[in-house]
Amino acid sequence: MTAAWDLIGNPSSVHAEGRQARRLVEDARSSIARAVGASPANVVFTSGGTEANALALSPGAGRGSGFAMQRLVVSAIEHASVMSGGRFTRDAISAAAVDPSGLINLEGLRGMLAVGPTPLVSLMLANNETGAVQPVVEVAAMVHAAGGLLHVDAVQAFGKMPMDITRLGADLVTLSAHKIGGPKGVGAVVLADPLSAREPLWYGGGQEKGRRAGTENVVGIAGFGAAAAAAMRDLEPDAKRLRGLKDRLETGLRESPGMVIVADRVARLPNTTLFLVPGLKAETAVIAFDLEGIAVSSGSACSSGKVQSSHVLEAMGFGGALAQGAVRLSLGWSTTDADIERCLEAWRKLRVSLLRG
Amino acid sequence: MTAAWDLIGNPSSVHAEGRQARRLVEDARSSIARAVGASPANVVFTSGGTEANALALSPGAGRGSGFAMQRLVVSAIEHASVMSGGRFTRDAISAAAVDPSGLINLEGLRGMLAVGPTPLVSLMLANNETGAVQPVVEVAAMVHAAGGLLHVDAVQAFGKMPMDITRLGADLVTLSAHKIGGPKGVGAVVLADPLSAREPLWYGGGQEKGRRAGTENVVGIAGFGAAAAAAMRDLEPDAKRLRGLKDRLETGLRESPGMVIVADRVARLPNTTLFLVPGLKAETAVIAFDLEGIAVSSGSACSSGKVQSSHVLEAMGFGGALAQGAVRLSLGWSTTDADIERCLEAWRKLRVSLLRG
Repeated sequence: MTAAWDLIGNPSSVHAEGRQARRLVEDARSSIARAVGASPANVVFTSGGTEANALALSPGAGRGSGFAMQRLVVSAIEHASVMSGGRFTRDAISAAAVDPSGLINLEGLRGMLAVGPTPLVSLMLANNETGAVQPVVEVAAMVHAAGGLLHVDAVQAFGKMPMDITRLGADLVTLSAHKIGGPKGVGAVVLADPLSAREPLWYGGGQEKGRRAGTENVVGIAGFGAAAAAAMRDLEPDAKRLRGLKDRLETGLRESPGMVIVADRVARLPNTTLFLVPGLKAETAVIAFDLEGIAVSSGSACSSGKVQSSHVLEAMGFGGALAQGAVRLSLGWSTTDADIERCLEAWRKLRVSLLRG
Repeated sequence: MTAAWDLIGNPSSVHAEGRQARRLVEDARSSIARAVGASPANVVFTSGGTEANALALSPGAGRGSGFAMQRLVVSAIEHASVMSGGRFTRDAISAAAVDPSGLINLEGLRGMLAVGPTPLVSLMLANNETGAVQPVVEVAAMVHAAGGLLHVDAVQAFGKMPMDITRLGADLVTLSAHKIGGPKGVGAVVLADPLSAREPLWYGGGQEKGRRAGTENVVGIAGFGAAAAAAMRDLEPDAKRLRGLKDRLETGLRESPGMVIVADRVARLPNTTLFLVPGLKAETAVIAFDLEGIAVSSGSACSSGKVQSSHVLEAMGFGGALAQGAVRLSLGWSTTDADIERCLEAWRKLRVSLLRG
């Protein structure tokens, strides 16, 4: 046995400085657990939502003594890290159809679950492009009736709508810190009770009860915990305020001829507006908005600055030309009335030239 | 295609705030590359040394068009995350013997490389328990002669001794931020030129050139870059100062009867002293030092606070009883003459009762 004389605390060390770091991590764990109605022991910290999805999507999932998941069913509008299927082999992954409304097609999913081996199903709580809130409770019931487990990627919804892992019926939930104003590079998988231990992505030290090895990102995790606590405290007033701003934004946008607000007929997150105008090229709009001082990015912003067509809009049945004119506006905690006005002004100014080019 | 109107920059977004975040990440990448004599394009950021080792230890490694590595040879004194073998199957992993000196046995390794398929070899630059600097240059020549690749876990050595990836002959190098005073939860794999793309641990967005998906830990990475720049700037004077403190510490320790400084006859890091005294129980020493206000931890501090016997000392041939009396003192940038004096005083005070208990 050896002993380390450290000057900066390592949360797995038993000395006083290590215990302080441990306390920061455990306080954050409690904060995250509280935010989603889970037990702190079931929170596994990761380096972000992408790693969390890779960790969650493993054939090794199971309840109690644990029977393995033999296939993965994902909705066709999941994040790239879910679409890739984690540690399932290519031929064990299938995608469930989505309606033009923006929601998963429940009858289609029911058919997929009716035949075939025990499924792990992955359905996001709210879509990152449209904001459409998916029917997770209904899907959970269907999945459990089929003997399967449900993974819910709640990265986009977390902090923007109330969430309770038990009420949702989710078995595994993915969260990310930076989407709620916390630091980038921190996330978590939260497990429902009782779910057997996960297959770790790698081995090393015994951190996170052996479920995720590596010295913890103490500062990032503490920031995640603080951001979650703040988001939960302000959830109701923030959602109300954002909904007001969004309504104002959408009312303004609807004045443009040909304007389509995507997923307009279903419940959406209070901060997300995705709009289409026939003839608009979003690629050009990104640059034009940027020149007006409004931060706009193309693609899902997870794809190394590349302009890509949206698999979400494709799954909803929007054709190539229409889909290329989709622009997403996401409101944040610091967005003001004046920002909305500025955005609408920019749009009115840019619209004509953008639709011409 | 969609566009995100973000208020906080995402480094993969093309808007102005995204570009600022991108610049922070790329500046850090250049700083890390400079510190080890590599090309910035060959630096892949991870969530720490453990993930970096898991990413590096993949059968998919190869030069140019790339032939796969068919087995993994690790030294018997590697970190747990290397000993576990990354993505090699159990039966494709073998461990090379280590001498009582604390260094890998070169003849033994030569024999292992002489027969069998193309090997990926993993040898740390300096051991985390003894500080012993391994003969990486010699091993690199042997590995390359056998058509294999060399991975060097430089987590412990980085920032404490000069390091150049080309001069070392390493093909892949693992680094960690928190061991050089940077934030916890950040690390990197650095590749030599030319090495073909690695198999990512998971898929998602195209970050890190598709080698490591997930929104980057911008703040952590920026801190890593700054810490590396500082460590490189102060490397020579720091090493000299630490060596002086360590000599003073070891001279003081040697006054105790039965004192053994481990790996005393080989080159060691300037900040590491591992000592043994027959009859000493390090487990008790940890608590006693802590009560004296000196931060001491048991195990390798990566093992969830558990007291474990050291596989490093075992590999060096130290028996169970002796190995349980090993205490490691690691000096840091803020360690002073007074700290050394305080440590020696504590040891003199504790020694008698510790050896009695």
